[in-house]
Amino acid sequence: MNEEIMTGFFAGLFHQRADVTVGPGDDAAVLDLHLPDGLLLAAADQLILDRHYTRHTSPADAARKLLRRNLSDIAAMGGVPTHALVTVAENPLEETSLREFHSALEEEARRYEVSVIGGDVASLPNPGKVASLTILGIVKPENLCLRSNGKSGDLLYCTGSFGNSFASGHHLTFLPRLKEAAFLAGRFTNTMMDVSDGLLKDVSRMAKASSLDVVLPDPALIPLRIGADLESALTEGEDYELVFAVNPNLASRMEQEAMEQGICLTRIGSFQTADWESAGQVLDSSLQPIHLSKKGFDHFS
Amino acid sequence: MNEEIMTGFFAGLFHQRADVTVGPGDDAAVLDLHLPDGLLLAAADQLILDRHYTRHTSPADAARKLLRRNLSDIAAMGGVPTHALVTVAENPLEETSLREFHSALEEEARRYEVSVIGGDVASLPNPGKVASLTILGIVKPENLCLRSNGKSGDLLYCTGSFGNSFASGHHLTFLPRLKEAAFLAGRFTNTMMDVSDGLLKDVSRMAKASSLDVVLPDPALIPLRIGADLESALTEGEDYELVFAVNPNLASRMEQEAMEQGICLTRIGSFQTADWESAGQVLDSSLQPIHLSKKGFDHFS
Repeated sequence: MNEEIMTGFFAGLFHQRADVTVGPGDDAAVLDLHLPDGLLLAAADQLILDRHYTRHTSPADAARKLLRRNLSDIAAMGGVPTHALVTVAENPLEETSLREFHSALEEEARRYEVSVIGGDVASLPNPGKVASLTILGIVKPENLCLRSNGKSGDLLYCTGSFGNSFASGHHLTFLPRLKEAAFLAGRFTNTMMDVSDGLLKDVSRMAKASSLDVVLPDPALIPLRIGADLESALTEGEDYELVFAVNPNLASRMEQEAMEQGICLTRIGSFQTADWESAGQVLDSSLQPIHLSKKGFDHFS
Repeated sequence: MNEEIMTGFFAGLFHQRADVTVGPGDDAAVLDLHLPDGLLLAAADQLILDRHYTRHTSPADAARKLLRRNLSDIAAMGGVPTHALVTVAENPLEETSLREFHSALEEEARRYEVSVIGGDVASLPNPGKVASLTILGIVKPENLCLRSNGKSGDLLYCTGSFGNSFASGHHLTFLPRLKEAAFLAGRFTNTMMDVSDGLLKDVSRMAKASSLDVVLPDPALIPLRIGADLESALTEGEDYELVFAVNPNLASRMEQEAMEQGICLTRIGSFQTADWESAGQVLDSSLQPIHLSKKGFDHFS
C-alpha cells in the first residue's frame, strides 16, 4: 500500500458519531454541532522537509505553504477558515528558523482572519522537520460542497491553471482559492474539491465519489501554467486549484458574473453516467479512458 | 530556548479572534461558537519515537498513549472529548505497524465516544516516527476549568498518584481522568490542569496563572505511585493526573461524595496570595520555596 491508499484505508476504519455529517475522505470533515453560523469543518495535513519543500525553502515559505494547503481544503468545502492548531517536530531544533516559521504563520493566518489557537514544538531524534496543521472552518449548510454531489450532465470547471508547480515555485506562492469558493459555493456549485495530487487523479476521485465518469473532450481546454506541458498539468499536482461541477443552466450566468468580478474560471469537461463498477473514469472525446504512458497520454497525444 | 519555552513563546505570537475565549497556554483552547451544548475545546499534541516511547513499545500502545494524552487535556478543562484528527509521518512506512496503530486508535477512540474525523499518513526522509493528534471537545460554560481561576485560600487536590511513570509503564497504561473531571468540574472546582511535566512544575504553572503561590506543607501528603520516591513524584512527569483548586467550604462534601463514588482524591496543599513579581512559587511549611537539588529537595529532606 502507498501512502494514499493507506490514508484512505485507515480513514475507513473509524466509526463516526451522529454529529459527523461527513467523515474522512473529503477535503475536510463536516460536523453538525448546531452552530448558528453553520457547520464546522476540520482537516489536518502535514508538511515534511525534503518531501513538500527543500532545504532551500525558507521557514517562512514553509509555514505559509502549510497554512495555505489547509486553507485550500476549507475553500474546497465552500467554507471560511477560522482557527488552526500547529505542531512542529524537528532536528536540529533551531530557534531562529522556528521564530521565522511561527512569525510567518501568524502573519499569514492574520491575513485570512484565522487564529492559531494551539500547538507544540518538540525535537526529533534524527535530522528532519515535520509540521502538522489542523484547520477549522465554518460553512453555511447551503454552501457546503462535497466531492460526491456531482450530477450527470453537470459541466466541469476549474480555477487557475495547472502544471509546473514545483519548478515555477507556485507550490510555495499560490493563494488558496477562498475568494473563488465564496463566489461559487451554494450559488453555482455544491460539488467541489481542490487539486493537490494532479488534475487527472483528483478529477477521477470527484467523479468516483459522485458515481459518475468525467469527459475531458479536448486537452487544449486545460489551462497550463507558464512552463507547463500537458503531462505536467494533468499529473504533477501541487496546483491547489479548485475543480467543481456546474449545472448547465447556471453556466453562462456564472461565467458572466465571474468575469465581472475578475474571477478566472475555465470549463474543461463534463460529467456523465457511469457503470457502477467503473465509475471514476476520465474519458476523452471518443469516450475512451485517458491512460497515461511514460511518453504522454494514450488518448491525448 | 528549550522546547517548552519555545512553545510558550510562539503561543504568545498569535492574535486571537473575538470567538476565542481562551487561546494558547492552557490545556486546551476554548472557542465560543454559540453551540447549544457549550464551548468548543481544541488541543494538539505530538508523540515521537525515542522521546515519548521506545522501539519496544507496540504501535497499539503508542496510539493509545497519543489519544489518552489529548483526552487528559480535555479532562483538565472540565470537558467531554468528541472528535480527533491524526497525522502520522514515519520511516520506514510499515503497513503492519500502521494498521496496528490505527486499529488501536479506533478502538480506544470508540471507548471514549470520540470519532477520528481526519488524518494523513506520509513517509519521512530519515528514520523515525512522529504522530500528531488534534482533539476537539465540548464543555458547559459553568464547568469550564482554567489554570488561572485559583483563589487565595483554595485547597489544592490531586487525583491518583505520582512518580515512576516510565519505569512502571504508567505512561502507556494510564486512563485519562475524564470520570473524575466530570465529577469535579463546575460543582467543586473551576481551576484544574493535568500534570504531564512533573507535579512541581505544573503546580507552579497553575499558581502563576492564578497570580498565587502554592504551599505543599508536607511531602508525606503526596501520593506516590508504586516504586516512586518523592523526587520522581515531584519531577518525573508523564503522570496524567489532575490537580485542582477547591474552596475550603466545599472540601468535606467533595471528599465524602468522591469516596462514595470510588473517586480517589488527595489534598496536598493550598493556594495563598503572592507578590505579583514572584507568583508561581511552590513553598514548604516554613513558606520557603522548594528548590530541587540533584540529591533531592532542599526543603523536603
